[in-house]
Amino acid sequence: MTIRDDAKFIMDAALKAALPDSAVAKALAHKDFGRGRVVVVAVGKASWQMAKTAVELLKDRVSGGIVITKYHHAKGPLPPFEIREAGHPVLDANSVSATARAIEMVSGLTADDTVLLLLSGGGSALFEKPLVPLAELQQITSQLLASGADIVSMNTVRKRLSAVKGGKFALLCRPARVYAIVLSDIIGDPLDMIASGPAYPDSTTCSDARKVCERFHIQLSPEAQACLDRETPKTLDNVDTVITGSVTELAAAGKRAAEARGYKALVLTSSLDCQAREAGSFLAAIAREYRDKGEKLAFLAGGETVVHLLGKGKGGRNQEIALSAAEGIRGIPNAAVFSFGSDGTDGPTDAAGGYADGMTAEKLAAQGISIPEVLDANDAYHALQKADGLIITGPTGTNVNDLSVLLIDRP
Amino acid sequence: MTIRDDAKFIMDAALKAALPDSAVAKALAHKDFGRGRVVVVAVGKASWQMAKTAVELLKDRVSGGIVITKYHHAKGPLPPFEIREAGHPVLDANSVSATARAIEMVSGLTADDTVLLLLSGGGSALFEKPLVPLAELQQITSQLLASGADIVSMNTVRKRLSAVKGGKFALLCRPARVYAIVLSDIIGDPLDMIASGPAYPDSTTCSDARKVCERFHIQLSPEAQACLDRETPKTLDNVDTVITGSVTELAAAGKRAAEARGYKALVLTSSLDCQAREAGSFLAAIAREYRDKGEKLAFLAGGETVVHLLGKGKGGRNQEIALSAAEGIRGIPNAAVFSFGSDGTDGPTDAAGGYADGMTAEKLAAQGISIPEVLDANDAYHALQKADGLIITGPTGTNVNDLSVLLIDRP
Repeated sequence: MTIRDDAKFIMDAALKAALPDSAVAKALAHKDFGRGRVVVVAVGKASWQMAKTAVELLKDRVSGGIVITKYHHAKGPLPPFEIREAGHPVLDANSVSATARAIEMVSGLTADDTVLLLLSGGGSALFEKPLVPLAELQQITSQLLASGADIVSMNTVRKRLSAVKGGKFALLCRPARVYAIVLSDIIGDPLDMIASGPAYPDSTTCSDARKVCERFHIQLSPEAQACLDRETPKTLDNVDTVITGSVTELAAAGKRAAEARGYKALVLTSSLDCQAREAGSFLAAIAREYRDKGEKLAFLAGGETVVHLLGKGKGGRNQEIALSAAEGIRGIPNAAVFSFGSDGTDGPTDAAGGYADGMTAEKLAAQGISIPEVLDANDAYHALQKADGLIITGPTGTNVNDLSVLLIDRP
Repeated sequence: MTIRDDAKFIMDAALKAALPDSAVAKALAHKDFGRGRVVVVAVGKASWQMAKTAVELLKDRVSGGIVITKYHHAKGPLPPFEIREAGHPVLDANSVSATARAIEMVSGLTADDTVLLLLSGGGSALFEKPLVPLAELQQITSQLLASGADIVSMNTVRKRLSAVKGGKFALLCRPARVYAIVLSDIIGDPLDMIASGPAYPDSTTCSDARKVCERFHIQLSPEAQACLDRETPKTLDNVDTVITGSVTELAAAGKRAAEARGYKALVLTSSLDCQAREAGSFLAAIAREYRDKGEKLAFLAGGETVVHLLGKGKGGRNQEIALSAAEGIRGIPNAAVFSFGSDGTDGPTDAAGGYADGMTAEKLAAQGISIPEVLDANDAYHALQKADGLIITGPTGTNVNDLSVLLIDRP
């Protein structure tokens, strides 16, 4: 068994534990929907998987609904639901038309009816009725993604440019009730932030949104500026919300898997939120400390790091963590760092993340590639590709944030 | 006892253990200087303390010498040595005149004589005979300090602009032998880098120096450019070097002190080298994970982080770590993060570092201060000052890098 085999084992086990199936089942176990209709609106990268579990359990009790997910994330038909795919991380016209269809489905419901809202991360891009022209919203989203702003800052702005975010979709469902099952992909599980909180009172204010735009130098039209100044709902009386799944479980499952492979394992955090590159550097510094201790050690960090895009390259935060760590563990034969997004997508790439070990930096140097230069260019994807360090999983069916793992084998 | 008392106890104990006295004594214990003269050249922030130990042990065996240290770092006369103070981190005319005096003292020695070179960090600025005009060298040094370049990159350039760095001082001592005792303040103890290696063969090349200037956009005159193209000595036959003290010992002493106060303590690393702000964020993420575990826990990280100066404020890397952590542990009553430079100086300030706890962010918010904005402006000093979070020690007598500590008390 190589350290790379261990990495794969740990990742697979953590991903399996983080699938939403059991979480959705638990949330539906004792739920009584009364006599009314049950319309499912499933939105996010894990929405197909969540909707599948819901229809398997509720069967004919479900009268219809829609699954809105990212391109290539639907795994087939799922009657009686309509299946729509749309753009992520930057929304597109399909996001808007799918959302219009969802609004149509929840219109005309009565107070006896329930909208079963199955939410997972990615919903901010996939579920949208914009209050500004689509092109402008896409452009603002791109600015936010490139600015280094964290997800909470981004959603604070996006909610105000939308007719469905920040609790506004719940208003459109009235008089029906909304039962929301939320698979959290944001550190600390802020319900008004996951998928930009379509059915949750907004905790942010106009003033917060203005501060984000100032801090990250976001350019806005006067029309968008006016939206920012309009306040969001602060209470909602027709919504019940259950939160399920989280990065804490992902990290805990990774820890159990590492222990099963003989590693002494420590979860450092489930809320890592620093810059990806620096997180990789920090993990590598831990590797240097423990390389000669003669123990099998695993350090795990769950969370969602940020990338400040300065270059024009291709990559994602998990790939940056692995590549940055590669430089710091250069030449250490018994260390490896891998990091992956639990949804199977890292940034705008087909990789879930990256793997690096003590040989990675040498492999790249032999090809004339300098890791600091690659990181400056935000081009981790191509470098990891050349060092056989891309982790490709395809859509996983879940979305509960990222996990980064440092493995130290016996020397 | 408050968590702040514990912080002070741990810092004081770690600093005491990191004093160079016992390390210098050990290096001199079985040293035979033969019949010749022994001339002491002590350079760096810990040079006064190192020279004091040397003369206490060697007494009349020392024929003379010079102590060159940073302003306010000499603690009084130390016969038979001349005491000079000079500029740091940017050298000044006193650096140059003190170095000229040292060169005078080692000129005309014979092969029977020994130069006892007592080196500590800070030597790069304090010990210099520039090959370009002083003003230009100061200006290049300032550029390097502000660029985010690490110390190894900086010294790679500075060695080539100097007649004493990169092994060249050892050539000036010939035919005398050089016995160098080095107190390391650089991660991994690269002997050619500490104080820019005045008596150690240079491991870097002209090509390395050019790459540093390109990567960090350092502006050079044609004259300086020509210096960069001149190679440094790769072997030296008149030097013996002993390395003593290191950040590993600082971290280990901090761990022992934390344990003495009832904390379960873990040294994460002794070679932390990521961005200061992100290191603070990482430590805070660990605090959030362990806040509710009901244990007294300490996580320690030694090393030397970097700051990419973008703002015009006042601060240092340790102050940035503490302030950044303050945002991440906001509202956690039982967590504190402190970080300090073992030399007692953090950046161009009179503070050794910073202390923050779960109340720090609220204290600042109450004064209208936003931590992210302060960090963007690199102005940690003034913010910590307003939250009673500056750590002031004055010169400590040692210089073995930085220590950052996260303390979690029982809830």
